[in-house]
Amino acid sequence: MDELYDIAVIGCGPAGLSAAINCMIRNKKTLLLGVDLCSEKLHKSPYIFNYLGFSKIKGEDLRQAFLKHTEDLGIILKKQKTDSVFDMGDKFNISCGEQIYHAKSAIIATGISYGEPIKGESEYLGKGVGYCATCDAPLFKGLDVAILGYSPAGEEEANFLAEICRKTYYIPLYKNLGSLADNVEVVYDKPIEITGNERAAHLVLNNSKLNIDGVFIIKDTTPPSQLVPGLEMDGHHIKVNRNMMTNISGLYAAGDCTGKPYQLSKAAGEGQAAALNAVSYVDKMKLNRSKELIYT
Amino acid sequence: MDELYDIAVIGCGPAGLSAAINCMIRNKKTLLLGVDLCSEKLHKSPYIFNYLGFSKIKGEDLRQAFLKHTEDLGIILKKQKTDSVFDMGDKFNISCGEQIYHAKSAIIATGISYGEPIKGESEYLGKGVGYCATCDAPLFKGLDVAILGYSPAGEEEANFLAEICRKTYYIPLYKNLGSLADNVEVVYDKPIEITGNERAAHLVLNNSKLNIDGVFIIKDTTPPSQLVPGLEMDGHHIKVNRNMMTNISGLYAAGDCTGKPYQLSKAAGEGQAAALNAVSYVDKMKLNRSKELIYT
Repeated sequence: MDELYDIAVIGCGPAGLSAAINCMIRNKKTLLLGVDLCSEKLHKSPYIFNYLGFSKIKGEDLRQAFLKHTEDLGIILKKQKTDSVFDMGDKFNISCGEQIYHAKSAIIATGISYGEPIKGESEYLGKGVGYCATCDAPLFKGLDVAILGYSPAGEEEANFLAEICRKTYYIPLYKNLGSLADNVEVVYDKPIEITGNERAAHLVLNNSKLNIDGVFIIKDTTPPSQLVPGLEMDGHHIKVNRNMMTNISGLYAAGDCTGKPYQLSKAAGEGQAAALNAVSYVDKMKLNRSKELIYT
Repeated sequence: MDELYDIAVIGCGPAGLSAAINCMIRNKKTLLLGVDLCSEKLHKSPYIFNYLGFSKIKGEDLRQAFLKHTEDLGIILKKQKTDSVFDMGDKFNISCGEQIYHAKSAIIATGISYGEPIKGESEYLGKGVGYCATCDAPLFKGLDVAILGYSPAGEEEANFLAEICRKTYYIPLYKNLGSLADNVEVVYDKPIEITGNERAAHLVLNNSKLNIDGVFIIKDTTPPSQLVPGLEMDGHHIKVNRNMMTNISGLYAAGDCTGKPYQLSKAAGEGQAAALNAVSYVDKMKLNRSKELIYT
């Protein structure tokens, strides 16, 4: 059988890092998944004044201190984007591209995506609209697709799709476009709406309209409601109780994705609380298993 | 009129300090009330490993860093024990001995008292049992009282009561007794129960039984349910929602007093969330006031 982690922490901002260090200190086999800078917001902050213990510190210095803390505990950050978290009953299956990880409990700490969904995005989700080209590409072989790239991560997906699709449009929604395959058509325009009947058929932009069979929306983080099927939301935020428990048993959440204020200390505190509650959950699981072994 | 604070923070452990710095950074007139060491638990901790940003730090060093942060922002800690917080509708009256402070909003961050109440303590509260000798002393003039001193703070109360009471017993429940007035009778024994009929009449100890008219229980912090009349509890903890709001409008709580896990990062994060929500409350109050001035 594949490796089974005790707790998977998805996201490496302050909530995710705080969760990971607390899981590790409690001797849990911990998986930490996240993107490149961990917290881009922190990386870009000139100074932080309200993280208790540091009167005035550069955002980047605090980010380094957080990462050093994680490294000092021997936690290895796997820089992979998580596409989905599935509740399998006794464990969670966490897929990152072609790799699937398994964990008894999971903590979602993916932050908040500042981009609102475009019109038709939710309506056509699974009907031509997707968040992971690598996962769904085979369904679009020989067809026409558009990729809305909110970050350079979209370029890789576009190049991959261009190998198997008839026509691949790429709409970069960030500055400094990197390298794309020759058969990718770059469209510099603002996406407005996805339209169609049963399935997505058109991507409407400010100045043009593309005929497509599929639209891939590539952001650094997948919206939680798409990431975890069945996850109860409260508007744009994951619904949690005071123990940072979601509506799914064994699944916790922490940080900006659970609600305002979007602040470092609140995120770190919630990461800690989520971790310690996940630790209890995993320990109880083990206890129940041993009871089953004794009594059955 | 007396000085009116925007926000009063009661307690100066990590939750209270984090609340105070966040109130101050948001330019609110902030009152910070607390006891001597702020966090005795932190002061005594050999090392802390799970406060994100510090891989390994002595408890006392982290306590000093927290206090320095507060001082750097110009926050003055008033070392006074809070006896009660009364909701007056448009403000809170906070009494500390003979002094009364006024604030538009308040944050309770008094931590958790590890001593369980003794038998009869809750039953006879207000019927001979009290938590503040300075407040209730006149009622016991010429009568017999006992003081259960959980910390040296009890000695001062005992000396004060000895001036006006007929008989004053002092039961020290800590090591290293300080100086007491000659007419205070020290009883080294373990308190078991307070008994009586309508009112408290006896303090039952392990090896003796004292006839009394009143019993004062002096701990470093008053239990929240006694501190704030009408405050909704959830067992030993203050009931709060995800915004750290209690059942009383304008009153917030943070840290150990709101529930487990009893951890630094969780406390600091909750202090921050409580502060930012209290700031919004105070700002809305001001807005409503201006509307009233315009429309009436």
